[in-house]
Amino acid sequence: MKLTGHNLIGDASSQGAGTTYRAVDPSTGRELDPPFFEASSADVGRAMELASESFEVYRRHEPSARAAFLREIAAQIESLGDDLIDRANRETALGMDRLRGERGRTVAQIRMFADLIEEGAWIGARIDRPIPDRKPAPKPDLRRMLIPMGPVVVFGASNFPLAFSVAGGDTASAFAAGCPVVVKVHPAHPGTSELVAGAIASAAKTTGMPAGVFSMLHGRDPELSLALVRHPLTAAVAFTGSLRAGRALFDAAAARPRPIPVFAEMGSVNPVFLLPGALAERGRQIAQGLKQSVTLGVGQFCTKPGVVVGLGGDAMRRFVADASELMRSGPPGALLHAAIHSAYVQGVKQTSGVPGVRTSAAAVAPSGTQAAPTLFTTDGDTFLANPRLGEELFGPSAVVVAASSRQQMLQIARELDGHLTATLHGAPGDLGEFGDLVDVLRQKAGRLIFNGFPTGVEVCPSMQHGGPYPAATDPRTTSVGTAAIERFVRPICYQNFPQEALPPELRDDNPRHIWRLVDGQWSRDAIGPC
Amino acid sequence: MKLTGHNLIGDASSQGAGTTYRAVDPSTGRELDPPFFEASSADVGRAMELASESFEVYRRHEPSARAAFLREIAAQIESLGDDLIDRANRETALGMDRLRGERGRTVAQIRMFADLIEEGAWIGARIDRPIPDRKPAPKPDLRRMLIPMGPVVVFGASNFPLAFSVAGGDTASAFAAGCPVVVKVHPAHPGTSELVAGAIASAAKTTGMPAGVFSMLHGRDPELSLALVRHPLTAAVAFTGSLRAGRALFDAAAARPRPIPVFAEMGSVNPVFLLPGALAERGRQIAQGLKQSVTLGVGQFCTKPGVVVGLGGDAMRRFVADASELMRSGPPGALLHAAIHSAYVQGVKQTSGVPGVRTSAAAVAPSGTQAAPTLFTTDGDTFLANPRLGEELFGPSAVVVAASSRQQMLQIARELDGHLTATLHGAPGDLGEFGDLVDVLRQKAGRLIFNGFPTGVEVCPSMQHGGPYPAATDPRTTSVGTAAIERFVRPICYQNFPQEALPPELRDDNPRHIWRLVDGQWSRDAIGPC
Repeated sequence: MKLTGHNLIGDASSQGAGTTYRAVDPSTGRELDPPFFEASSADVGRAMELASESFEVYRRHEPSARAAFLREIAAQIESLGDDLIDRANRETALGMDRLRGERGRTVAQIRMFADLIEEGAWIGARIDRPIPDRKPAPKPDLRRMLIPMGPVVVFGASNFPLAFSVAGGDTASAFAAGCPVVVKVHPAHPGTSELVAGAIASAAKTTGMPAGVFSMLHGRDPELSLALVRHPLTAAVAFTGSLRAGRALFDAAAARPRPIPVFAEMGSVNPVFLLPGALAERGRQIAQGLKQSVTLGVGQFCTKPGVVVGLGGDAMRRFVADASELMRSGPPGALLHAAIHSAYVQGVKQTSGVPGVRTSAAAVAPSGTQAAPTLFTTDGDTFLANPRLGEELFGPSAVVVAASSRQQMLQIARELDGHLTATLHGAPGDLGEFGDLVDVLRQKAGRLIFNGFPTGVEVCPSMQHGGPYPAATDPRTTSVGTAAIERFVRPICYQNFPQEALPPELRDDNPRHIWRLVDGQWSRDAIGPC
Repeated sequence: MKLTGHNLIGDASSQGAGTTYRAVDPSTGRELDPPFFEASSADVGRAMELASESFEVYRRHEPSARAAFLREIAAQIESLGDDLIDRANRETALGMDRLRGERGRTVAQIRMFADLIEEGAWIGARIDRPIPDRKPAPKPDLRRMLIPMGPVVVFGASNFPLAFSVAGGDTASAFAAGCPVVVKVHPAHPGTSELVAGAIASAAKTTGMPAGVFSMLHGRDPELSLALVRHPLTAAVAFTGSLRAGRALFDAAAARPRPIPVFAEMGSVNPVFLLPGALAERGRQIAQGLKQSVTLGVGQFCTKPGVVVGLGGDAMRRFVADASELMRSGPPGALLHAAIHSAYVQGVKQTSGVPGVRTSAAAVAPSGTQAAPTLFTTDGDTFLANPRLGEELFGPSAVVVAASSRQQMLQIARELDGHLTATLHGAPGDLGEFGDLVDVLRQKAGRLIFNGFPTGVEVCPSMQHGGPYPAATDPRTTSVGTAAIERFVRPICYQNFPQEALPPELRDDNPRHIWRLVDGQWSRDAIGPC
């Protein structure tokens, strides 16, 4: 499959102002063909104008038509076959199996959103019937549902070249909601992005969607990203990446004359707490699970467990010894790109240099952009005195903390920032005894895991992938699962509208047969007068 | 009932740094007793610390206990009797009947939130059951619900001294969600605020709630407001008032190290469109309704219709003549305070001076802080050329615009900013013919009204009181109706938690018998394994 390196602006291509860059194979450090053209500010303007124009058409399509578009995207991605997986592997070094798995997740979540909007209840229909003879004033007929906000700008993430990128969960949920999407490609995988963008453009054509419903822009300059956020026609922004970049987008959006929401999923250390019963029962098993979770995808998951806290003692000493040995045995792996690699090397060096921290690095020395699994171990006092030990280090490392007391463990939990997840390992009795710890962690995270590991984010209605700042800019939302669609919609209320002027979801006869809240009661029935 | 003029910080009172101010009776311009003490920055710190401490207790109370607290607040407000109404009338000049009605709405919405949390389904329980033998990986057990965010700062609004003030919808929904509240009183009605705050404090004591669950601060200095928004323990902010003040709070919250949401309901002009059939059928009746809606509460509702657009012609000329005559016949009324009065006088003068605008003011000359009902009439070209004609003017005035064509009417709609409401008056055939206008207005407002007027906001599940910026900072939320509670909560997901460690709402046996989304299906049943 031939790559052009062009930006895609609706159904036109653009070479921007002519400046180019190339992707790099992280396993070799070599540049890949072709050169990719960085988008110009004219490209930004044109993409947003097309998105805005297409919004007028796209939002009026029936849910079944939008679902057909989504399903065609999934099919087109699948039909790219191993060309897509090969290119993604060359750009990310994540491995063919992992990338096939990620493709499976990507198309599954696209189809999940197609099913969701076809089923239809997600629009949250509420109906309050009128009471014309109520005193002192009649009660009007009120009906409420969710409608799309407008063009959404999506930023591709480096660590999920498929599932959180061009046709990832942000794009799928925005399309499902009825919003056009302009994707700013992550410069680490532009070729993968072009292939997927082609699949989306082809699906739009096949299913009769307006071309401007989707555009894709390449570029490395942060000003390009800011221009997309600042463009007056942008209605919302979705981002997965670093705290620094996410916050810059958030600040730009908040400073606009007309502020817009930025749904940024940013850094997270995903603390793990080991309760005494679990350590005594199955410390070695937990150490094995930890090693697997920390090194999965070379430690480049936003749900990687980065801090592990247990109560000091014999069982904890054995756990530390087991975990150190397991991490040492782990082979090095190539990180996604040079910037991540140098940040990892720098971070490992800094952490190792903190007095009171012991470091156990892999026996095999890494080369090139490779990173060695690294376990740091320390005590609670050192951890509390060095807040940097609790910050995210992207890559295959974790800090294990032996707390001196139950009280100190609780203190460590209380001083945590916001995280995507928090995990507890416990024996049957532990959770009752540590109820206060569970309660503290509930205030700190979007997802609480018992006797498991945070990596592996299930895509389903109950998932919450987000959390208190700095895990996310808006902890009221999720970027994974069906509820992700709620980011791109707002409620509207119709008062005393005649039946024929109402959207089908709000009509008396309930032609879509959806669940609705009628006078405060859930029902799928058609309704008559009060 | 004796007023102290003190700030209420939990169960303690404070005289701040000793500086005081007095409320003013807007109908006489005279200062009222007693002096009110402006809160100090130490008061802000103490109130937020108490709120944060009390959050640890309050959020763990059963919904039934929180509901009892809310109901006791309503009862205590009612038991203040006419003392409350008298004081509110002296501070606002809104009239005893209006204020009795507003008190009825205030206690009704407090009880609505009590009922809502006792019923329980609002927490949005979702359960996805596990599939232990799924390949390639087991599906975990995931359960999601909403939990409170933390202490909420509420700013009282000048125009609703009861329903959008100390114990208004913001406070009631925050308490219902499980959040402590610190109220910054509107300086136009501090005595009313002290009386209501006493009712809340007394209800907290009677029902065994921690004292810090509620504090009330007086002050006129914008720095006090900003200090509340910037305090690290503040989790969210609710505000009703001007665009300028709301935006200042929003900016301060976005610039925090840890940003927090500001739910500000700000200015709105609430455009009304008159379709030809309606004008022909019942122009005079619409003119009467318009006059009533524009002059209600001396035009100081955020839903006051400020711009009316109709298609030029004989019917429109008759409507303009009728509306002008009706507005001229309306008696002047006292505005809420001197600043609103001077802004109104200034605004009327500016609008009257725009070439192409005709002004019909009341025959009776106003005195003191009184405002005369004023109707401005102009043509579509003048309106489009003078954007200030489309800005909110708080007080009993409206601008009537005769558009030269259907196209110009549509253009006026397209150029609208965000509004709380948009209204259409039409005969049976009109809505079909003007489908494009309905569609444009849907993008511009939170609530669409057919053949009615926007004043009078029903408090119920289907209400949407909010809208695209600048009507509100977050159009995804409402400040009126049961959905207002969603502003102060965020989702949390439990993965593989044992039954006994789950909140009751997520347990298999569904002890609260609430509606839940189980494996994508709504159900109130207890559940077993998949």
